[in-house]
Amino acid sequence: MEPAKITYFEDFQIGERHAFGLYEVDRDEVIDFANRFDPQPFHLSDKEAAKTPFGRVAASGWHSAGMMMHMLVTFWQSIPGYQEASLGAIGVDGLRWLRPVYPGDTLSVETEVIEKRESNSRPDMGIIKTRTTVLNQHGESVMTMIPISMWRRRPEGAADTPRSRERP
Amino acid sequence: MEPAKITYFEDFQIGERHAFGLYEVDRDEVIDFANRFDPQPFHLSDKEAAKTPFGRVAASGWHSAGMMMHMLVTFWQSIPGYQEASLGAIGVDGLRWLRPVYPGDTLSVETEVIEKRESNSRPDMGIIKTRTTVLNQHGESVMTMIPISMWRRRPEGAADTPRSRERP
Repeated sequence: MEPAKITYFEDFQIGERHAFGLYEVDRDEVIDFANRFDPQPFHLSDKEAAKTPFGRVAASGWHSAGMMMHMLVTFWQSIPGYQEASLGAIGVDGLRWLRPVYPGDTLSVETEVIEKRESNSRPDMGIIKTRTTVLNQHGESVMTMIPISMWRRRPEGAADTPRSRERP
Repeated sequence: MEPAKITYFEDFQIGERHAFGLYEVDRDEVIDFANRFDPQPFHLSDKEAAKTPFGRVAASGWHSAGMMMHMLVTFWQSIPGYQEASLGAIGVDGLRWLRPVYPGDTLSVETEVIEKRESNSRPDMGIIKTRTTVLNQHGESVMTMIPISMWRRRPEGAADTPRSRERP
């Protein structure tokens, strides 16, 4: 079997799932991110965090999103054609921070394609919704969201990719 | 008139609006953020971005969220009591990246409280939804979202704040 290859919107299948990623949450990175973008006391100091439900320094939720994005992009770049097919994202629905992310945690990602449709305004483009979950080393969900992303459509007459031949 | 003061959930008013912030989008910061968290070609290289609708290097959408957060926290920390009242955020609904954010842009924020309710599970806590818009120097909306945040409720018998006395 040839490796999975994504060239166009048409290659995504509703229900397709992936699990990938490994991100070690580094204390210095947590504090550096918070200093730059989210300087709330509970992201900067164990002493201040002890006064809150966090208990100890926890990562900014936006840092968790950044760590997820790093795992997503690394995954995409491991699949031939995937990055070229991507046209970026419109946005994200239902972003939820479910549990704190602490220095020393190890994160991973699970995705499932839940919706796809052709763009009304741009016939060369399709739109895909993917339920995306970030888990910690205990298998607990720490963050979920549904990114809404844009992908190139297969032009008339273009050859099928190996993947779309595999799954007609 | 005394300055605005937020001590508890009860001090927020539906319909209240704020405009604040000034964030100059720095090219080195854009590329540094992308290298760490979102290393897609159009966030790293003008040449690669020229092949996409971005045209030139544009900030990661997660970087834009981080810049927004910095403006939010700076604003909160300028209002007495606000930071102490905050219990963090549950998540964000309807995050949309509407226009690219480029190095050299200057961003600002507008917020409006659109919903508030007492927590069902935690009687000491209330939940607030705030429509939050990030604008560029041309007054164009570049990003919108509805953060869902948690705030301490006023304990029985606690004195009103100056602000809640002003606006019964």
